[in-house]
Amino acid sequence: MSRTVYVNGDYLPEAEAKVSIFDRGFLMADGVYEVTSVLGGKLIDFDGHLKRLHRSLGELGIAAPCSDDDLLAMHRALIEKNAIDEGMIYLQVTRGNPGDRSFVFPDASVKPTLIAFTQNIPNLADAPAAKTGFKVISIPDIRWGRRDIKTVQLLYPSMGKMMAKKAGVDDSWFVEDGAVTEGTSNNAYIVKGNKIITRQLTSDILHGITRASVLRFAAEAQFEVEERPFTIAEAQAADEAFSTAASIFVMPVVEIDGAAIGTGKPGPVATRLREIYLDEMRKAAL
Amino acid sequence: MSRTVYVNGDYLPEAEAKVSIFDRGFLMADGVYEVTSVLGGKLIDFDGHLKRLHRSLGELGIAAPCSDDDLLAMHRALIEKNAIDEGMIYLQVTRGNPGDRSFVFPDASVKPTLIAFTQNIPNLADAPAAKTGFKVISIPDIRWGRRDIKTVQLLYPSMGKMMAKKAGVDDSWFVEDGAVTEGTSNNAYIVKGNKIITRQLTSDILHGITRASVLRFAAEAQFEVEERPFTIAEAQAADEAFSTAASIFVMPVVEIDGAAIGTGKPGPVATRLREIYLDEMRKAAL
Repeated sequence: MSRTVYVNGDYLPEAEAKVSIFDRGFLMADGVYEVTSVLGGKLIDFDGHLKRLHRSLGELGIAAPCSDDDLLAMHRALIEKNAIDEGMIYLQVTRGNPGDRSFVFPDASVKPTLIAFTQNIPNLADAPAAKTGFKVISIPDIRWGRRDIKTVQLLYPSMGKMMAKKAGVDDSWFVEDGAVTEGTSNNAYIVKGNKIITRQLTSDILHGITRASVLRFAAEAQFEVEERPFTIAEAQAADEAFSTAASIFVMPVVEIDGAAIGTGKPGPVATRLREIYLDEMRKAAL
Repeated sequence: MSRTVYVNGDYLPEAEAKVSIFDRGFLMADGVYEVTSVLGGKLIDFDGHLKRLHRSLGELGIAAPCSDDDLLAMHRALIEKNAIDEGMIYLQVTRGNPGDRSFVFPDASVKPTLIAFTQNIPNLADAPAAKTGFKVISIPDIRWGRRDIKTVQLLYPSMGKMMAKKAGVDDSWFVEDGAVTEGTSNNAYIVKGNKIITRQLTSDILHGITRASVLRFAAEAQFEVEERPFTIAEAQAADEAFSTAASIFVMPVVEIDGAAIGTGKPGPVATRLREIYLDEMRKAAL
């Protein structure tokens, strides 16, 4: 069945969903995005994603394409039109189509481009991968310096995913100056005893929406949270490791560069945090 | 008058030139480009641009969208349909439209997207800016680590152009680890006596097609060419400075971070190299 997707105010069959070749998202990667999960037909952590969207837009000086109420209504309309129970909604805003190519930003008369579409993933919460855990490799982090802005400059993360696939594993963790920054599309954590360690928020990593919620739930569950860089060697010697992102919630990591983490199976901390996250976020879903 | 542009085999009015929202160029900046100048209705250094296009595609594992003969024929068709005497032809190849979004590359059944369009610039060779020279500022180079691949990840170069505009100058030069890498969309040079100094080719900078030709002409004209990094301080103390790119040929740089270079006017070396480049490339134009 063809999806109904959203393009600049219109709901269209996906085959008709197009943007101009002059759109700055296409010519210059001048755009930002958000991915919101859907569970039980409702939006997970939507306010967090909206807040980060505004931050990304603000850092780049791109205008908001519409009101937050309109964004919420659009997300709900996409869920309804595509009968999504579990899955994701991808949203992208670009600096728009100035009608020609220039490094200079267009003036305010050029409106941002807003597109969105659903991905139907029936077993998103009950993902088989969460039961076995991710295996990851480490690769050099050569991305640009403003990873806190969620731009569509995803070529290297995509290449990192392919390097993982070629190595027969599930994902890559980026390493810079000897320490882990994050995964290709997720934040990275290790567990030592009662302590959860994850890199602090700077422009080196994405300010994960799932990260913020998981760390809040972890503190409420009496875990100690330490925000600092860690090395691959420290991760390999940890009790557990895991990643978080809107699309994977809390995903146990059971192997890094061929070395098993802990028992080599999803650990109790990651498993418990995944349960807490899913329970709490379902309750708060919009 | 509306341009006629090229999209995946079709020549279309520019208002109808669109790509899918699922194109990896739009969602993931997974694409590369080339810009070829046109003088007297003919293509400048086209073989060089073709060669670099193949290198960029090869580094990313994107298939060539068509034969080189087809690319040449398409460029000539765009020149004719748009009656271009002086200007530029922009070409972009992306990994195509897999019909959905994934970090994993699509299989070979997904064909690359190829688009191209003209920009009519009647005074490209006789550009007023070449008579007064560019003023530039220096800014930190925070781009990704593979600047030798000519990808569409141009958000930061675009931001750099806006920083220059805000500072009331023409361009920005990127600085990394204390040394100049290149300009926002051009290679950077300084001149000391008979010596032309420009950064060596690594993954730190774009391997400029105009750069290669200009250095060849410079050597033939008995200039000494030294390929090494230089600092902003060294540039400010140099006799001359200049930038090269397909769209600006050889452009004198007369001020860096507020300090006049040499006399503060286009110098004899940059001026002579511009003349030689234009003369030689017109003769070899396709």
